[in-house]
Parts: sequence; structure tokens; C-alpha cells
Amino acid sequence: MEESTQLETHSSVFRTLRIRTANRVGVLAHVLAVIAEHNASVGDVRTVFIGPLSRVRDIDLGFSDEAEIAATVAAIVAIGDAEVLEVRDEVLEFHVGGKLVVQSRYPVHTQADLRRVYTPGVGEVARRIAADPGLADHYTIRANTVAIVSDGTAVLGLGNLGPLAVLPILEGKAALLSQLVGVYGIPLVSRSSDPDRMVDGIELLSAGFGVVQLEDIAAPACFGIEQRLNDRGVPVFHDDQHGTAAVVLAAIISAAKIVERNLSSAKIGCVGLGAAGNAIAVALMRYLGNPVLGCDINGEAVARLVAAGGQAAELREVMASCDIVVATTGKAGLIDPAWVRPGQIIFALSNPNPEIESADALAAGAALATDGRATNNMLAFPGLCRGGLDCGIRSYHPDVFTGVSEAIVSLSDRGQLLPPTLEPAVHRVVSRAAAMAAMAAGVASREVPSDYMLTGR
Amino acid sequence: MEESTQLETHSSVFRTLRIRTANRVGVLAHVLAVIAEHNASVGDVRTVFIGPLSRVRDIDLGFSDEAEIAATVAAIVAIGDAEVLEVRDEVLEFHVGGKLVVQSRYPVHTQADLRRVYTPGVGEVARRIAADPGLADHYTIRANTVAIVSDGTAVLGLGNLGPLAVLPILEGKAALLSQLVGVYGIPLVSRSSDPDRMVDGIELLSAGFGVVQLEDIAAPACFGIEQRLNDRGVPVFHDDQHGTAAVVLAAIISAAKIVERNLSSAKIGCVGLGAAGNAIAVALMRYLGNPVLGCDINGEAVARLVAAGGQAAELREVMASCDIVVATTGKAGLIDPAWVRPGQIIFALSNPNPEIESADALAAGAALATDGRATNNMLAFPGLCRGGLDCGIRSYHPDVFTGVSEAIVSLSDRGQLLPPTLEPAVHRVVSRAAAMAAMAAGVASREVPSDYMLTGR
Repeated sequence: MEESTQLETHSSVFRTLRIRTANRVGVLAHVLAVIAEHNASVGDVRTVFIGPLSRVRDIDLGFSDEAEIAATVAAIVAIGDAEVLEVRDEVLEFHVGGKLVVQSRYPVHTQADLRRVYTPGVGEVARRIAADPGLADHYTIRANTVAIVSDGTAVLGLGNLGPLAVLPILEGKAALLSQLVGVYGIPLVSRSSDPDRMVDGIELLSAGFGVVQLEDIAAPACFGIEQRLNDRGVPVFHDDQHGTAAVVLAAIISAAKIVERNLSSAKIGCVGLGAAGNAIAVALMRYLGNPVLGCDINGEAVARLVAAGGQAAELREVMASCDIVVATTGKAGLIDPAWVRPGQIIFALSNPNPEIESADALAAGAALATDGRATNNMLAFPGLCRGGLDCGIRSYHPDVFTGVSEAIVSLSDRGQLLPPTLEPAVHRVVSRAAAMAAMAAGVASREVPSDYMLTGR
Repeated sequence: MEESTQLETHSSVFRTLRIRTANRVGVLAHVLAVIAEHNASVGDVRTVFIGPLSRVRDIDLGFSDEAEIAATVAAIVAIGDAEVLEVRDEVLEFHVGGKLVVQSRYPVHTQADLRRVYTPGVGEVARRIAADPGLADHYTIRANTVAIVSDGTAVLGLGNLGPLAVLPILEGKAALLSQLVGVYGIPLVSRSSDPDRMVDGIELLSAGFGVVQLEDIAAPACFGIEQRLNDRGVPVFHDDQHGTAAVVLAAIISAAKIVERNLSSAKIGCVGLGAAGNAIAVALMRYLGNPVLGCDINGEAVARLVAAGGQAAELREVMASCDIVVATTGKAGLIDPAWVRPGQIIFALSNPNPEIESADALAAGAALATDGRATNNMLAFPGLCRGGLDCGIRSYHPDVFTGVSEAIVSLSDRGQLLPPTLEPAVHRVVSRAAAMAAMAAGVASREVPSDYMLTGR
């Protein structure tokens, strides 16, 4: 059998197939070959039973859509030597009941416990905070708690799915915050996408949170919502803008190092100027001091970039003239490999399917190419939250995001675009960078100790 | 030394004194006598060190105010045989950092974990919820989560302390929800007390919660806020109204049994018609079918009761004519023992200090007297939340509160006003009663199984 040169498609549906195969050499290989023909990606394979005549294995598979599941199962059954015993939704099962727990830090079993946790003990705490509201950060979870707010209008790469559909994603972000930096994330979803109502409602109910993180809110509404909340004194950042931009800026700095390109003289183009694209362009211009070329099918988005100091351009012009291209359009396959300029650095960041496959870009002469899976924004948001909370950040000054980018670069091993995403030490360094940058920019309301985050917590 | 007949005052400030006393018989008794002279109430006494010449003990004390602490310490030192080594705020220390934790249900240590918790695994969950929003109750924490919302305008008996000061109380309620019924409570505080803004903001951001519990919001704003949220389809109840009323109604039913009084022919008066008083009066009228007498210094509050079928009266008239009096005025000592009618049942519910001390009421001839400490609303709200969530309650029909009252009565041992507050079995029965009543009233969106809460969960 000739090896295929076709790339795996990007999976969006995951299933575990329990398969019984006859104890003959080559049957598993045959099954995997059939799976490959259906473009399913193979994850873990676990043997769950070994008998005299057959064995049973669980095979984790990723499919591009649900139709592929039935087709793949039918093809496996057609082999004759293999039986599909079960098709399980292990990923879905994992989400049943949600992904967070909210619990009391202390047991409440006795009247003495109750008097401490609740009345009358809590009365003195309430009176002290009333007399000095700053004490809320000492006596409540406020200084460790982030509201993660969305209206569900820009869910992953899936579009406007509404507030309830974005809840599992907000829970996932909260789960990561708890695991990576010990922050309490509270999902809050908005029934309405009217910016006036959202600004008013979020401001109203954000007093108990040290930071507000906006999430999956569509452009252009996201720009005004963030700005107006900031103007009203709410410490807020929109992760799809600034978290993503901080990580992409870091990856671009690393990429320039890897291919030994001078970033300050490089011509950079941004294809797509939505929430992420606009923030990346603005962060690049701020960091480098040079204008960035930008294109978008939406004239308002282009005008926004021009107002921020960028230059309008056409897609083909960007591809033909830029040393570095960052695409965030959500349009899979938008970039024709024929347009790639030799030596170009290409970030095709749309998820789940990029504007151009990295392999195709490299084959067409790109010096370096990557996609959205490799530039995950989860490197930035945990530290932006942890560092912001710990210094009592009043507003997310742009220097905070730049500081985070530089920290991420400092953590990337030679030859790597970005550091590992699940490494606690990485998030400590990012947290420290965020807090230190906030203090330097004068937006911190308390000083963190000079050894802040130098050791684990 | 003659024993004092003076009653302990109601403590509102708690301290632990570490005291070293000489190893002589009677020194501890002397110390406690001095403490008693300062009206401090004594909690646990723990010996922490026994030496050849002295021993060290921690003594938990409750004081009426902070000035009493210094006076008591000075008096102990003046004994000569005792030394105060330390005055610790154990209750305050307990609240440092807040009383809740928010955590991931699953560890996220590997890329495989990440793909499940976050992208791309979560994408299918989001798509499924978008196609069928009801699935949010299956795939997220929504169906187990209650927003506990307050503007801090009516904090305990302390008045308008503002949104940050009420946070530790909301955390305490959330801690109790997690401990007693496994519900996730999320504190949300409102920066503004404008009812229009609150209704709009709470409605906007409540989509991710199965139930909204309002808390410590002052009358009369609380009435309209609850009503309008209910009209907009938010499943909501104001605990200070309906949670309290459900418990007080139960206690009144038990009280009538204890003193063998016929409740349906009893004349009942409510002194104070704020959030709690109005709700108690309305619940009584609904349950008994008879009008209730009510008085309040606020004419609007009296008019509200009359509109609900009650009768306006003066305080002295209520005291002179009613068989049962329920006082919720917040005015300590409002009721002169001379006004007590022999055989009267008196509920003087204001915290921390009642309208009349139970002992004084009994001495004046009352058949039964109790105060707010004995009629804690924590018997109702956990089950109202748990039962409401489990049946997917759409609105809190009055029958749900009555059902809870009857369940509480059924759980009270003979001769007791109310069942024990920290008993998990009690909260299971209340939860079941709430869910069953919601189903019977047609306000449940799903059926709970017929054996719901008959066993532990």
C-alpha cells in the first residue's frame, strides 16, 4: 500500500470505537487503513480484552463530521474480521453535568461552623468591608475571581451559537484557570447581544470580580463593549483580541528569530481584521513602530485599522509584498498556495481549518508556516488573569499585553515558536510579567512582592 | 457570688483570648466571672499548655461591640493571676481569602485532557446546545447552579452596607448550598440599587443559572425586582421574603400544635411589613384563608398588605387583640413586656436583637416566645434551590413555598418549633417537597423521578 501524502483533515467530532478483531496478524493494520481511508484521525488505542480467538480494543478517533462516523463504522464492519461493539461519545460524556465545581472551603457540620461561615460571625466581616470597601479583596474570593463573559456571538470558529452554547467553552476556560493558575473563573452569559445592555449589565454585576474577561463576542460589537467597560472603570480584557494578540506577537517574534529575519524592517500584513486580526495588527504596530498592511472584506474593519495607523491593502497585494502574513479570516483555504512568496512567514490562524495548510505553504516556498492549533491563546489568558488579580489591576494597559508577549518569547526554547501550554512554570512567568507590567504602567492598585511568582504557589 | 438573672446580650463580635493563669484552684472561675461582668458570652475553652506553674487556654468569646473587648481584657489583667497573651480574630481569619473554591472537575495535565475540556472536543458540545438549548442543562453546570444576587441594601440586621459588604454573606449562603444540598452558588453583587438597572442586568446575565436567589435587597425595591424578573421568565425567589416566610409559617404551625391552639381561628398580627413581614403575612393569609392584622410606620407598606387582603392596625391594637404576633421590624426592644397578652404566641424575629426578649415575653405571660436565631431561614433556601433546579422550575409558584413549610412541619419533632438546620436528611425532604409542589403547580419543566430524594444523593 502506497503511503498517502494527503494531510489529515481537522477533526471536530470525537468518538471511541470498541472493536473486536480476530487474533490474526495484520487485522488491526487493516482496520486502521480503513479508518485512514475515511480521513479519521487516530488517537489512543487501548486493548481492553485478550481472548484465545479475538481481542477487543478501544480506538479514539476524530472525524470531520458526524456523517463520517457511520461511513467509517460500516467500512470496518465490511472487512469481515472486525466487529464494532460500541461507538461511545467519551468527550461528550466528559461534559455531562458541566466541568466545574463550586464548593465551600470549610465544612459546615456544627452550629459552631455555622456561626463562623454565616451569621452571626459574618456580620463583623460585612461591617468592616462597609467601612473600608478595599477589604473585600481580603475577606472574600473577589481578588481571586474572574468573570468570563460572553454572548455567544463568535463561538470558536463556529459563529453565532447563542449564550447557552458558549457555556461549555466558558466552563473550559474556567477549568483551565483553576488548573493552571488557581484562579476562580465564573461563566456569565448574556441573553442579549445589544452592546448598550451588555455594557450596562456587565458593569452592574462585576463588582464582585477582580477582573472581567470577555470571550467569544463578535466584532465589531466587542470593540465598543470592551472600551466602554474600561471607560467605566471595570478591569476588563477581551481574550479573543488581546490574549490572542499577545500570543501571536510572541510567536511572530520567535518566528523571526528562527528564520533569522529582522522584525523591525519586515513588512507585515494582516488578512482578516476581526477581533483577533485587528488586535494583532495594533499590537504589532505598537511593538514595532511600523504600519501594518491589512485587508478585510468589511470596509469598516479596514477603516478601523487605518484609523489605528495601518494601511489598507488587497489580499493579493499582502501576499505578494509582505514578509510576514497573519490570517484570521475564518475562511478555510482562502490562501492559494500559488500566492505564497518564497521565504514568507505565514500564520494561518483560523480554527478548525486554516486559510492555508502549513504543509502546502511550506511546499510553496514559505520559510515558516503554522496554524491556529500551534498558537493557542491559552498561553496568555491565565497569566493575564492571575497577574492582574494579584496586583489589583485597574485597567489592562497595552503594556501589560506586550509584557506578556515578551515573557512568552523568553520561555520559548530555541527553535520553538512558543513554550508548552500546560507547564505551570510558564504560567507563573507570564503572571509575573503581567503584574510587573501593570505596576510599571501605573495601573496596579497594590504592589506585588519583588519575588512574586519566582517560586510556585 | 449571687447568680445573675440578667440575660446574655446578643453577640456580634467574636474573639479568641489566649490566657495564661497561675496553677491555682479557682483562677479560671475568677476569669470567667470577670468576663461575665462584661456581658461577654463564652464559647469553647481549650487548654493549649499545661506547665508546672501555669496553664494556657484559648477561650472563645462573643462581645456586643468592639469596645467591650478592650474593657474585658483590661479587667482580666487586673485580676493579677491571669495574663492575656493574645487576642485573636478567629472568625475573621476564617473569612480571609473568601469561603468558596471554584475548580475544574477534571485534571488538565495532558494535551489529551485539554482536547476534551477545551478545544476541539468542546466544539461538538457547543453545536449540540445551539441546536437544542435545553441540552445546556445536560452538558453544563447550569442545572446545578444558582446565582445569589444582592445590592447590599439590607444586610442582615445591619442596613444598607453596599454591594461589597454583602459579598461575604452571599459566600456564606453559597457555602451552605454546597454543603447541605450540593448546589453551586455564585455570588453576584450589583453596583447600583436602581430597580430598572437591576432587573435588566440580572435578566441579561441569568441565562447560565437554573435559579436566581435574591438576597438582602431592601423593601420596597425587592418586591418589584422579584416580580418583574418573574414576569420576564427568570426562575427567581427572594430569600428574605419567601424563604423566611416558609420557615416562619412552619414554625407558627408547630407553635400552634405545641400550645394546642386552633390556627384557623387564631387572630394573627404582623408587626413590621418589610420584605419578611409582608411575605409572612401573605403566606399566612394564603395558608389559613383569613386576613392578618398588620402595622408598620410606613404607610405604603400597610397599603401593600391591605391590597393583599390584610387589615391595617396599630401596634398596641395588635398586641392587645392578637393570639399570635410576628415582629420583623429591626427595632430591638420595640415591644414592651407590659403589652404582652397572657397566652400570646410571640415571634420577635429581628436580628441580632429581637423586639422583645423571649424570656421577658414568657415572664409577661406569653404561652410561647421565640426569636430570629431560632427561626433561621436556612431550613428553606437550600431545598428551594435544589428542588427547583432538579425539576427545572420556571417560576416559584406560592404553592412551592407552602409545600416547603408543610415539609418542615413534618420534620419537626414533637414539642419543637423546627427541625435541626444542619441535618442533610431534612434538606432532602424539603428539596423533594419543593420539586413535587412545583410539578403539581405546573411550573416544572421536567419531572423528577417518583423516588426523588427518598434516598441520599
